[in-house]
Amino acid sequence: MSFVAAIDAAARRKASLLCIGLDPEPAKFPAHLRARPDAIFEFCRDIVDATAGLVCAFKPQFAHFAAQRAEDALGRLIAHIHTSHPGVPVILDAKRGDIGSTANHYAAEAFDRYGADAVTVNPYLGRDSVQPFLDRGDKGVIVLCRTSNPGARDLQDLDVGGRPLYQHVAQLVAREWNGNGNCALVVGATYPDELRAVREIVGDMPLLVPGVGAQGGDVQAVVNNGRNVQGAGLIISSSRAILYAGSGEDFADAARREAQKLRNEINRWR
Amino acid sequence: MSFVAAIDAAARRKASLLCIGLDPEPAKFPAHLRARPDAIFEFCRDIVDATAGLVCAFKPQFAHFAAQRAEDALGRLIAHIHTSHPGVPVILDAKRGDIGSTANHYAAEAFDRYGADAVTVNPYLGRDSVQPFLDRGDKGVIVLCRTSNPGARDLQDLDVGGRPLYQHVAQLVAREWNGNGNCALVVGATYPDELRAVREIVGDMPLLVPGVGAQGGDVQAVVNNGRNVQGAGLIISSSRAILYAGSGEDFADAARREAQKLRNEINRWR
Repeated sequence: MSFVAAIDAAARRKASLLCIGLDPEPAKFPAHLRARPDAIFEFCRDIVDATAGLVCAFKPQFAHFAAQRAEDALGRLIAHIHTSHPGVPVILDAKRGDIGSTANHYAAEAFDRYGADAVTVNPYLGRDSVQPFLDRGDKGVIVLCRTSNPGARDLQDLDVGGRPLYQHVAQLVAREWNGNGNCALVVGATYPDELRAVREIVGDMPLLVPGVGAQGGDVQAVVNNGRNVQGAGLIISSSRAILYAGSGEDFADAARREAQKLRNEINRWR
Repeated sequence: MSFVAAIDAAARRKASLLCIGLDPEPAKFPAHLRARPDAIFEFCRDIVDATAGLVCAFKPQFAHFAAQRAEDALGRLIAHIHTSHPGVPVILDAKRGDIGSTANHYAAEAFDRYGADAVTVNPYLGRDSVQPFLDRGDKGVIVLCRTSNPGARDLQDLDVGGRPLYQHVAQLVAREWNGNGNCALVVGATYPDELRAVREIVGDMPLLVPGVGAQGGDVQAVVNNGRNVQGAGLIISSSRAILYAGSGEDFADAARREAQKLRNEINRWR
């Protein structure tokens, strides 16, 4: 099954557009976990096991593992999700972007080494930098379009021929890069007007929307402006607000309650 | 010593603007190395030891290590360069770009985990995505501007207010992001006119220029169009043409000869 179909199936089965971002920060772990040698894996695994019934995807963030020398834990975590929660796709949030021969290596890293079902990529280097990802028709390629951070405007809002650069990227991906039907776009929850503009350009294409929760994105505005005509097509990602909802031994329960609340809040506006 | 000063000092001491890109591809290794358990480290170390006297920097390419699960070899290689060849800066070519909190982790990965002296970053997410790198005043931040691949034109050449996006990036970095004097730009050797345009915008700022050698960039045009008023300010990077110049047990000697030839060819036009 292709990534786009798998996301859609998971969203229906779980009645959820929620994606949990797995951004492990050991300093924020519950005290009883912190000193354990495999704390990063154990923390993420417990969150995953507690919330897998509530999500359409998990999104491990590469840098949070790499900065801790935890590539091995990342690999085991993705394998655990596939084995214990089949049908829940894994998006590796790595924002890769490099030229042809190197892009091949990044595609191999994401899809073959880590076994991710989709990966986030940066469009600045152009089509050939994304081609090795696009060629993997069963995998998802989620292109950065309009990100959720304040600096997004520095380049992404620049006027190119009467519209902002991020809209040009949305059109490029929808019209030219999506030949295998495996593309999606990242649009931050913190900019609902931009989300609406992108939805109008890309039709039914899935949009990965980070920035609800800790970054302040408004759920109602995200769903209203971002959903496709089927009331879906959104992968709404929250990380810190769910992962660190509790700080005691019951942290996974606290995360599940927070995930349930956000899933229901999203569904309320669909 | 800051990265920019260190590069300049190395270029003077070695009379060289050559940077060797370390892109290990085990399938291209000499037969006697291929089966060895630590082949990636040993191959790169032998190249480094044979050529350190001829270069102003080494540039390991992250994906080539990551796709082989060789993060540990990458760390040991950078430590080896610092210990055995002090004064030769190491540029980690990772093309990172992510939002605030995650960018901190990528900066920690590059500078603290791996001990790199500089790292390549992608500007698409804007200033706050680069800030954690800029804040490390002793480290170099090398921003993608005009890359060497054919797809570079897809975004980088789009007209923004009467000039192409890559020139806007050059000006943004030179005027606004370079408060700590630790910025440089990536401009591909395959586009000498663009190199000249960037040099005119950024004054003396160092330019990292990949794409001579296997990608076909012309050395004379690169030096003529890219040097600053001191006849320097260029970090001209070649990878495959040097690394895989020989395929026998004498591969490191073959690499040294190729590096010497390219260094001399560069100096001929300074």
